[in-house]
Amino acid sequence: MSKELPIGLFDSGVGGLTVLQELRKVMPNEDYIYLGDTANLPYGTKTEETIYRYAHQATSILIKRGVKCVLIACNTATAVALAKLQTSFPSIPIFGVIEPSVHEVCKKTKTHHIAVLATPATINNKAYEKSILKKLPTARVENISCPLFVSLVEEALFQGPIVDGVIHRYLDHAFSSQITKDSPDSIILGCTHFPLLKNTIQNIVGQGITIINSAEASANHLKKDLHAKNKLYLNTKKIGSTHFIVTDDPQKFLNTGSLFLKDPIDKKNIELLHT
Amino acid sequence: MSKELPIGLFDSGVGGLTVLQELRKVMPNEDYIYLGDTANLPYGTKTEETIYRYAHQATSILIKRGVKCVLIACNTATAVALAKLQTSFPSIPIFGVIEPSVHEVCKKTKTHHIAVLATPATINNKAYEKSILKKLPTARVENISCPLFVSLVEEALFQGPIVDGVIHRYLDHAFSSQITKDSPDSIILGCTHFPLLKNTIQNIVGQGITIINSAEASANHLKKDLHAKNKLYLNTKKIGSTHFIVTDDPQKFLNTGSLFLKDPIDKKNIELLHT
Repeated sequence: MSKELPIGLFDSGVGGLTVLQELRKVMPNEDYIYLGDTANLPYGTKTEETIYRYAHQATSILIKRGVKCVLIACNTATAVALAKLQTSFPSIPIFGVIEPSVHEVCKKTKTHHIAVLATPATINNKAYEKSILKKLPTARVENISCPLFVSLVEEALFQGPIVDGVIHRYLDHAFSSQITKDSPDSIILGCTHFPLLKNTIQNIVGQGITIINSAEASANHLKKDLHAKNKLYLNTKKIGSTHFIVTDDPQKFLNTGSLFLKDPIDKKNIELLHT
Repeated sequence: MSKELPIGLFDSGVGGLTVLQELRKVMPNEDYIYLGDTANLPYGTKTEETIYRYAHQATSILIKRGVKCVLIACNTATAVALAKLQTSFPSIPIFGVIEPSVHEVCKKTKTHHIAVLATPATINNKAYEKSILKKLPTARVENISCPLFVSLVEEALFQGPIVDGVIHRYLDHAFSSQITKDSPDSIILGCTHFPLLKNTIQNIVGQGITIINSAEASANHLKKDLHAKNKLYLNTKKIGSTHFIVTDDPQKFLNTGSLFLKDPIDKKNIELLHT
């Protein structure tokens, strides 16, 4: 597997672009192929069987294109499909976005009381809770399913009274008072859409709460891992490129994608692929 | 085509159950096969090409099961696919949910100023506007895309400050003041999810505004049409039955479906079919 090959990553839509953004920050010399499975979005409200089917298909496409590794840039697909995909495709390293943020939260929490904010599918699967308890058996985990966060972010609604109302709806139960000793001291944003709500969530729960962005944690972890696997890492090019593949609606991907990536996307780099 | 055959209808998920509810009200003796294409939901934020592909597949499944007609119980799929499906399947009557509510609104509006509330795909397609202008060339149509309404209803959020906030966000521009002479006098709820928000919308825009529920209008229209096509109409059974087919997650369909249908769904009547 040549180190000159691109890194492949996929998500159901634009959410994974928050991961790509972090990857390009820490590994600017790499080439990337980003697959947005927009014909099948969202993953977070579907069953494990269906999510696995979509994730398997996305991984196959990336491997056929020739990538040196695959990062599942979606918490739901990581929760449901990572282990099975690693078994199905043993010839290529496959990474997820859950372990890195769990590793980070376990280092940072003092009270061992942790809240995980994610989609219904990720919460139901309990991947975060299991992974946290493995590392930190004394932890107490609040699993909070936040489906409306995805819709708000998809509509570029990041702050204001509607967003505040939805955050209070989901978090007031666990963070009933910022001075309650029993509130979690850390939050994992366990969905790639949620980093865009980070500031608003931080303002509501208070500055004393640690918020871990799984996109950032995953990018740092992937860099470290590729560095360890020396033969994979470090493309020698000066500036890496990104190629985008979408399974539906390149125009919408272009419009909302730039918000998630915090960088304009060039239309000529987007390819439509019907699955 | 025997009149004893069931009526087939489909939607991307549970939304079309508001149509089924109205159908069972006006034609309680009929049998129904309801297909919820939950593996591919939602349709409303996808491209016409992809929506047509899903609608074609759903129609084929229903026809293979043996139905006397197909009702597209989804505004988005009607807007995008009705005419093409009628051409593709000439042997069976195929109905949509747009014409009936347009017919009704054109009878009721006094100012000829009409607001259409729908998903982005239905609004972009302009099916409602074109159909209204054909019947009422003097009409002025406000096309209002309301994607968050779907997410709210899917989360069983029908009232309260978050819902009020979202309704104000979408409607304040057109209904800036309930006494403005320039506001529309009628609203079409052009998505099968929206009837569950009807009361809250009515309270916000005021009791003087006529709100047309496309589910109700469509059920009445189908009854009239089947009555005219005598050979199709009127199953002689005392009480009709309903069989449900879903392409993903029967459990979730069971849980939220009962809200939409306003009637409990029996688990043994739900069949999972992978497409």
